[in-house]
Amino acid sequence: MNASEVLRRLGEGRPLVHHLTNYVTVNLVANATLATGALPVMANAIEEVEEMVATASALVINMGTLDATWVEAMILAGREANRRGIPVVLDPVGAGATRFRTETPEKLLSEISFAAVCGNAGEVSTLAGLAAEVRGVESIGGDAREAVEKAARSLGTTVAATGEVDYVCDGERLFAVKNGHPLMGRIVGSGCASTAVVGCFAAAGDGSAETVSGALSYFGRAGEVAAEGSEGPGTFEPRLLDALAALAADPDGLDGHILVEELPLA
Amino acid sequence: MNASEVLRRLGEGRPLVHHLTNYVTVNLVANATLATGALPVMANAIEEVEEMVATASALVINMGTLDATWVEAMILAGREANRRGIPVVLDPVGAGATRFRTETPEKLLSEISFAAVCGNAGEVSTLAGLAAEVRGVESIGGDAREAVEKAARSLGTTVAATGEVDYVCDGERLFAVKNGHPLMGRIVGSGCASTAVVGCFAAAGDGSAETVSGALSYFGRAGEVAAEGSEGPGTFEPRLLDALAALAADPDGLDGHILVEELPLA
Amino acid sequence: MNASEVLRRLGEGRPLVHHLTNYVTVNLVANATLATGALPVMANAIEEVEEMVATASALVINMGTLDATWVEAMILAGREANRRGIPVVLDPVGAGATRFRTETPEKLLSEISFAAVCGNAGEVSTLAGLAAEVRGVESIGGDAREAVEKAARSLGTTVAATGEVDYVCDGERLFAVKNGHPLMGRIVGSGCASTAVVGCFAAAGDGSAETVSGALSYFGRAGEVAAEGSEGPGTFEPRLLDALAALAADPDGLDGHILVEELPLA
Repeated sequence: MNASEVLRRLGEGRPLVHHLTNYVTVNLVANATLATGALPVMANAIEEVEEMVATASALVINMGTLDATWVEAMILAGREANRRGIPVVLDPVGAGATRFRTETPEKLLSEISFAAVCGNAGEVSTLAGLAAEVRGVESIGGDAREAVEKAARSLGTTVAATGEVDYVCDGERLFAVKNGHPLMGRIVGSGCASTAVVGCFAAAGDGSAETVSGALSYFGRAGEVAAEGSEGPGTFEPRLLDALAALAADPDGLDGHILVEELPLA
Repeated sequence: MNASEVLRRLGEGRPLVHHLTNYVTVNLVANATLATGALPVMANAIEEVEEMVATASALVINMGTLDATWVEAMILAGREANRRGIPVVLDPVGAGATRFRTETPEKLLSEISFAAVCGNAGEVSTLAGLAAEVRGVESIGGDAREAVEKAARSLGTTVAATGEVDYVCDGERLFAVKNGHPLMGRIVGSGCASTAVVGCFAAAGDGSAETVSGALSYFGRAGEVAAEGSEGPGTFEPRLLDALAALAADPDGLDGHILVEELPLA
Repeated sequence: MNASEVLRRLGEGRPLVHHLTNYVTVNLVANATLATGALPVMANAIEEVEEMVATASALVINMGTLDATWVEAMILAGREANRRGIPVVLDPVGAGATRFRTETPEKLLSEISFAAVCGNAGEVSTLAGLAAEVRGVESIGGDAREAVEKAARSLGTTVAATGEVDYVCDGERLFAVKNGHPLMGRIVGSGCASTAVVGCFAAAGDGSAETVSGALSYFGRAGEVAAEGSEGPGTFEPRLLDALAALAADPDGLDGHILVEELPLA
């Protein structure tokens, strides 16, 4: 489904998107969700995650900060979402950086069926079993195109690797998304926010490679708009939310600016 | 007490306001407290909540994200505040959305005496035992005026329901506050921040319907000032803090802009 | 090492700085780290803190919000850093405000060897065993110069007390840093962010009084730059990140603006 169509549906339906996310970028994630047209809710208590996700149209699981209790909440919420047919999106933040961060997505992927998995090249390479250099939660190099193809096949779901060029593959189709701006890599949480937008698109659309590419293209275009007039990463971030909101309110603003290219599978 | 008088007292006394709040909007809550003229402190460890609240002039309990340990800390801090005559303000975020979020404020209200309770129409309707539609932590409809009157009587405290028009009732008087701007509903945490301001006003003033209305009017007026020149929700949020700080530094700026109307009780 | 030299090294090496910090100001801390040229990572799970810190070039422990589990994680990470010769910086937020906040830094200081300790005058006075007035996490008065000298000697490490004038002492040299702007005290987390910058400087430089003074001078100069054109604390904060990033990208911008004075020891 194309980005404009999903944004129109979001604005009409205002679906609830439930986030189990980290305490570092949670505010940006929530505001990006709201700017995109969905209603964010963050609720992580074991006592309520299943009941909350049952009222949502999508669940986003982000591993930015986590411990054993959080992982338990993620599994409870993810399974309940699966039972109800609610799409679940995973951001495997820092996969490859520590054993805990490598084993946790493996566990989540074995217990939960995901509509899409979005990370950086290093994280996706780790999930695909390829060599990767991850420094903390940053990816240093790695072949993103190869990684998404391999991970999409081995995980049987849509996989996106974000970076200067984003690659998205669902095993049948492969896209490169060239929207974006270097300032996006200079704020903390642009990856988390882009995954949140993918969650919104899954809530009102689906998790196909085409729709996920549309989400990342919309997010990247907002970054391009926001960069005009920004004096640095600090003033860029609020402008990014402004641009997300403006494009969501008027999806025609995307016309002629979507830089998505379909590539042949390897 | 009117808003200008409370703001002057805040600027002179710089009282400490202790927040037990959620990790989503905590930074905005802290900065709104500081901009209003009080000193924020966030401390939630069982080991210290009672000792910390004893040094504060008000306690704000916000249920945005919570689990069993947090509820225990809220009760410990709330009881100690009650013992010392320190006013306690409750924001029952998401009441009605899950059983845990409906039962927790009932428990808090049975264990702690509150100076004021501030939520959206759906949350206040839930506390009042009225039908309400709550989607995650957002209220969808509900009769706010009826809800605050009913909740104020049944809870025996001041109750505010924020929205396009805010309603405030303490069982004896009922006010409508018409300050505000639609952009306030487009950022995450404006409700939490307005409750934080009510907490500041309780610290330097009191929890009467008149004072709570003044707090919400000041907050809404800051939103009106901030909206001028904002290009969207992202740039609106820092400007809201600027406006809160500017009005707190010069409360005369509120003159002629307070849109509070007293209404007859039903 | 002077500030320009450290900033150049940061830009070239992009070292990882591991933060165990509070949920109130964590986003600002992460963005300040990134703007300064290092890569931030926040990871607090007992399962991974030792493995994560082993990949980092510095560890920053900030007590802003804490409980028993966090203290355990801090000790595990701090000891592992010590074993590997990775510098550790402490921000004893709120020391003196509650018993828990006074005893925790004592415990941390007895278990971990710190390269630098950075707090406000009240917190440093508390560590030095001097009388101090701390209200929540704010310092009210106290003789910062005396406190850093006394604390540096008793703790055997570099100690900085930030305020209108910052004082830094490592037992052998004492510096006063006069860069800065009053707006820095009107945002929540400027102290946490300045300690994060000290952590970055420790990662690429060292923990000497000279280097710590350089870090605080760079941070204060960014505040001066950011204040030009800010309309209040809200718009100041993103501009502070812009200024940190601009000075980090072009350290020559510091030339002629560093206000560091060496003082005689008492």
